[in-house]
Amino acid sequence: MPSLIRDRPTSTPAMLAAFGDEALLRAALSFEAALARAQADIGLIPASTAETIATACAQLPDIEALAEATANAGALAIPLVALIRGRIADPGIARLVHKGATSQDLADTALMLQAKAGATLIVDEARRLADALAILAETHAATPMLGRTLLQGALPITFGLKVAGWLRGVDGALARFKRETSAIQLQLGGATGSLAGLDGQAQAVIERLAILLDLPAAEAPWHARREGLAGLASSLAILVGAVGKIAGDLSLLAQNEVAEAFEPRVPGRGGSSAMAHKRNPTGCQVALTAAIRAPHLAATMIAALPQQHERGLGGWQAEAPVLADLFQLAHGALAAMAPVIEGLEVDTARMTANLAAVEVGTDTGESQALVARALAAHRKDR
Amino acid sequence: MPSLIRDRPTSTPAMLAAFGDEALLRAALSFEAALARAQADIGLIPASTAETIATACAQLPDIEALAEATANAGALAIPLVALIRGRIADPGIARLVHKGATSQDLADTALMLQAKAGATLIVDEARRLADALAILAETHAATPMLGRTLLQGALPITFGLKVAGWLRGVDGALARFKRETSAIQLQLGGATGSLAGLDGQAQAVIERLAILLDLPAAEAPWHARREGLAGLASSLAILVGAVGKIAGDLSLLAQNEVAEAFEPRVPGRGGSSAMAHKRNPTGCQVALTAAIRAPHLAATMIAALPQQHERGLGGWQAEAPVLADLFQLAHGALAAMAPVIEGLEVDTARMTANLAAVEVGTDTGESQALVARALAAHRKDR
Amino acid sequence: MPSLIRDRPTSTPAMLAAFGDEALLRAALSFEAALARAQADIGLIPASTAETIATACAQLPDIEALAEATANAGALAIPLVALIRGRIADPGIARLVHKGATSQDLADTALMLQAKAGATLIVDEARRLADALAILAETHAATPMLGRTLLQGALPITFGLKVAGWLRGVDGALARFKRETSAIQLQLGGATGSLAGLDGQAQAVIERLAILLDLPAAEAPWHARREGLAGLASSLAILVGAVGKIAGDLSLLAQNEVAEAFEPRVPGRGGSSAMAHKRNPTGCQVALTAAIRAPHLAATMIAALPQQHERGLGGWQAEAPVLADLFQLAHGALAAMAPVIEGLEVDTARMTANLAAVEVGTDTGESQALVARALAAHRKDR
Amino acid sequence: MPSLIRDRPTSTPAMLAAFGDEALLRAALSFEAALARAQADIGLIPASTAETIATACAQLPDIEALAEATANAGALAIPLVALIRGRIADPGIARLVHKGATSQDLADTALMLQAKAGATLIVDEARRLADALAILAETHAATPMLGRTLLQGALPITFGLKVAGWLRGVDGALARFKRETSAIQLQLGGATGSLAGLDGQAQAVIERLAILLDLPAAEAPWHARREGLAGLASSLAILVGAVGKIAGDLSLLAQNEVAEAFEPRVPGRGGSSAMAHKRNPTGCQVALTAAIRAPHLAATMIAALPQQHERGLGGWQAEAPVLADLFQLAHGALAAMAPVIEGLEVDTARMTANLAAVEVGTDTGESQALVARALAAHRKDR
Repeated sequence: MPSLIRDRPTSTPAMLAAFGDEALLRAALSFEAALARAQADIGLIPASTAETIATACAQLPDIEALAEATANAGALAIPLVALIRGRIADPGIARLVHKGATSQDLADTALMLQAKAGATLIVDEARRLADALAILAETHAATPMLGRTLLQGALPITFGLKVAGWLRGVDGALARFKRETSAIQLQLGGATGSLAGLDGQAQAVIERLAILLDLPAAEAPWHARREGLAGLASSLAILVGAVGKIAGDLSLLAQNEVAEAFEPRVPGRGGSSAMAHKRNPTGCQVALTAAIRAPHLAATMIAALPQQHERGLGGWQAEAPVLADLFQLAHGALAAMAPVIEGLEVDTARMTANLAAVEVGTDTGESQALVARALAAHRKDR
Repeated sequence: MPSLIRDRPTSTPAMLAAFGDEALLRAALSFEAALARAQADIGLIPASTAETIATACAQLPDIEALAEATANAGALAIPLVALIRGRIADPGIARLVHKGATSQDLADTALMLQAKAGATLIVDEARRLADALAILAETHAATPMLGRTLLQGALPITFGLKVAGWLRGVDGALARFKRETSAIQLQLGGATGSLAGLDGQAQAVIERLAILLDLPAAEAPWHARREGLAGLASSLAILVGAVGKIAGDLSLLAQNEVAEAFEPRVPGRGGSSAMAHKRNPTGCQVALTAAIRAPHLAATMIAALPQQHERGLGGWQAEAPVLADLFQLAHGALAAMAPVIEGLEVDTARMTANLAAVEVGTDTGESQALVARALAAHRKDR
Repeated sequence: MPSLIRDRPTSTPAMLAAFGDEALLRAALSFEAALARAQADIGLIPASTAETIATACAQLPDIEALAEATANAGALAIPLVALIRGRIADPGIARLVHKGATSQDLADTALMLQAKAGATLIVDEARRLADALAILAETHAATPMLGRTLLQGALPITFGLKVAGWLRGVDGALARFKRETSAIQLQLGGATGSLAGLDGQAQAVIERLAILLDLPAAEAPWHARREGLAGLASSLAILVGAVGKIAGDLSLLAQNEVAEAFEPRVPGRGGSSAMAHKRNPTGCQVALTAAIRAPHLAATMIAALPQQHERGLGGWQAEAPVLADLFQLAHGALAAMAPVIEGLEVDTARMTANLAAVEVGTDTGESQALVARALAAHRKDR
Repeated sequence: MPSLIRDRPTSTPAMLAAFGDEALLRAALSFEAALARAQADIGLIPASTAETIATACAQLPDIEALAEATANAGALAIPLVALIRGRIADPGIARLVHKGATSQDLADTALMLQAKAGATLIVDEARRLADALAILAETHAATPMLGRTLLQGALPITFGLKVAGWLRGVDGALARFKRETSAIQLQLGGATGSLAGLDGQAQAVIERLAILLDLPAAEAPWHARREGLAGLASSLAILVGAVGKIAGDLSLLAQNEVAEAFEPRVPGRGGSSAMAHKRNPTGCQVALTAAIRAPHLAATMIAALPQQHERGLGGWQAEAPVLADLFQLAHGALAAMAPVIEGLEVDTARMTANLAAVEVGTDTGESQALVARALAAHRKDR
């Protein structure tokens, strides 16, 4: 059994649900139902046949049994299509389930439906974080603090300038992520991606199916052309890195001896099982954990790219759990840091004192102008 | 919710259970119970107090609620200890739960108890695979086939020599894994790893606790010294790589145009949702999927090594899910390939024909002697 | 000493030169010269001062000595600026070298100048490969062959459809790379990125410097905001993956038993030191080697993202060699595969025979229409 | 051209030389010379023939030309063997050069000779670091300081306890590395690893060659069985991680606001090109840079494991530069940190003050006993 106690602290219930078994099965069943309806809509099969198939796709199967059967068969489509067919009395109709599709059409489209839901969650939470950063940057545009380079006190900046850097890091990573979501597309290619098996009407079926599932149609089947997914994965890992940068800086600022900024107090959060006086940066912990794991997940997706021939062995089968992990970690990191920024406790007196202690003057250069520029750019990107 | 349909096909029910929530909680509760009993055994607390605590550790809590509370608190120990204490009427006894321990003591020891169970499964399945390979190598010690280098036909070998290479790869990787299981040790260091909080009797408590939990005592607390775990993780990834090598070769031998070896026929396995004539190498698929993912999981564990100060932020929290993934993928790969080797269909006539087609003679060099040496070495390692 | 024998076979002389020491030093010296000139152009320093500085930047220093001094100092700027100053007799002028800049300004801008040169090489070679693929796809739009899924014979496609998939993979990866080259920007922020040290004229200096160096000005200093570089690195690794997909497929098609396509014969290439009859797929070897290494280099760049405070310790210092490796491997892979595709030997009779042997009919579905669409899309992207 | 300025700061001249072109060529030539002599020693070829061959192997060829030829051929052995043969007038002798060997025999054995030299450097420098840590731990066994967990002040420890943890991390990683150097073995298998081509005397040749090259003979050719190299690579990355842990902690202790420990002052080291007051932790920078890069290099070696058939395409060709990088980074990290520890400036008054500020008492638990145990264990491992 997968572990909720292990996975929940680094993600969110919403994203865990988006990539959970129920969401996967709903997506898979909706693919088969919509495939039949799309074929009916353009006259390839009777409308009543499509409705019979859709009805057979309405009910979720037993998850544990299906997981076992999937493991045995090697692909979800095999037991799932058999199960749907088993729910249909008329064998002439039953054999039209999955018509023109291949296992990977089902697997990829279901994954893309999950990714689409996940992407909405990511964008919303990243915007929330970015907006909180914008407010914080504006508030502290002129708050002097010690700039630190190579972990040594350097020259003065303003806290707003530091936050503006965090902001534009998240903005830039979010913009990339949004671009890369263009990879979230319908997959329908049939057994070898040649669009055989749809009676010469494949393009019409694809266009109709894309509308029914509310997924963009692809230029062509992409069974073995996965650079879009690798780009999407990389963009998630980079977004995690941008959030991890914030978490890293904040955890340094929250050290006892620095004491310039602290996560907000939340009942029961950041306590210690052994030391009552401690206030751990738990939001930062979540983001830093994600930042350690995400790069390697992106690497896995890139490493999987050279998939053999028309549909590969091992490569695409490795992608779904990795992409799910990336969405889950990214959302966990964003959702952990957004409230941290929204409620950040800033000790400007301590910032002033730490700056004074290094005796490097008070010239913050063009920090305020840079903050203003960053905020303007953020508003434009938004 | 984590996804069983996504995770089951690349692992086994036994290993998923070993790293599942129930196993985690049983391990965590057994740590708290044994900690109390160990302290009682050496006279730090009354025996009756220990039994009250142990009784309070007997029942598994609600997993979903505990996962939420863990996410909020930032560590499992916080809500779990609170829950155990809540089951004890006497506040004087309740506060002795978790005495001398810190969150990471619980987390690490529980992970190690899971890893110990996982290691037994790995060793058993790797031995099964290795023994099957040894039989196959012996059977085909003298079966001539085309040796292939850089994916081109080269000179003759025997099939037994190829299999002997697979065998020694698994043997070598298994030997490394067994060495690295020495990292599976009890963790008990208290808040900062100084062994404070155990009334000056820490070593005695540790020795007793090690016996009660049947885990080796560590030389010293290893909260921020994680190279053992990284070594364990790497050894699992390397084992997966050794199995992936077999799967890669077999999937090439099973190509229609080569047709020298095939996975055994298993009802419902390796079918195609679109093509009835196909016989997919599903066991190889599992192992190759694992081989794509495992290197990056090992890299995560190594990347997490520079953990800050006495107990780090983000690093050790990243390890448990990654180590679990590695155990699960490794067991899945082994369990997929062991029956493939046990039931492998070998077409020696085709081997002979493919060799003859390249016209490179029939001198298989010292292949048979090399097979004999490999089998002798295998038996010695066994 | 770095190894030419080790690095040359996986790259090209042009790209090795672009990231070589001479190119690095020319870039670094041109930064210091242009920085002085930009300040002169807007009246911060006298024009004659700028020319004295520029003259002192004209000559390349001894590389070995500078490498030693860089290692000792911890940053190239320190010995290089000292060296330039040492060439200037007037101490009042000497101290204006590097005015307003910090070590990382020099390091980042020099790296970006190298990356800009590298990006031109990448785009040119990727277009060459894509154009060759387009011609090959058109030539074989209707050539029937066996489609293969999960490394098993599946249903017919055309060879043109397979090549069209390769083409659009490269096109998509190239488009991403071109987008990500927007990260190639001037770096000038001063000690803490506050633009202090330029007498309140920083924006004017930056704009002028950008023109002189022919690099886009950045919205703001990006010393600790590295997601652009991570995106660039990922896009290179993904491009390598798209090329690796081609190499993987071709090396499978070139197997003796399949024998459908072969790398062109080139004197001295692909031979064997032990077997005169062999013809190794050496171009594919280069691309596959790159595809094994690139994902992890991208992961390194992503892992380096959480850089501390205003300029980090260890993170940005890790990037330059990794980015250089990525450019070098990507160009090596492209330059190895472009001539392979241009001169590919295709055995259509063998394709027909291998297809017939599987007895799956001859319906290539809509392969030809898909090829036409891909070619149209390629021409539009071009 | 590879970049000395880029590679030197993260490594050492000694290790760069060990993996440089000259060392590579000397190793390759010594392989060919010793191969001939070994065959002469057991009577396969005349002694005079062997000496003629050995003489032809004495002089290093032009590196740049050989690099180009290697890139064209796809393997170093092809142009190098041709070059050696070209130096021999008698064609009957010339054709005996490389007799019984294949390209990968040369490549692997040369790499192993380089690795053997590298391993000696690693062990020496790791011992130097460990011994310095042992002295430091002993000196500060009783020096109280604040223990820090999750980057927050926790409870007291001694500085010696912290250093003892560093020490045992290095000791553990070094022990693993030494174990994994057992992979450094002679490679001689002939074209397909069958030991054909040595007139039935392969074992005798191998044993003699092993003595001449002072490399252990392997149980069997390991052309496609690479788990030993992956283990060696992982152990280097883990060693880097153990050193990175020290560097990370020290860089935190050296922050202005903490100010408990500092790298020793070295003329010209750790300066800033913009800020005269700064004292950057340059040794830590080197080690942290290595710690960011090393995990991914290890992952590359593991990812390369599933090499095809008797000798693979792309996999083993990817290993040499990656293994070289790992040796170079590891030695760089060790050589950077050893003098840091040897000359570490410790401010015990500041440690006391920082501890007092958190008001968590002064009970350092069993820190001193733990230090004593660690030192005893270190001395035993030594």
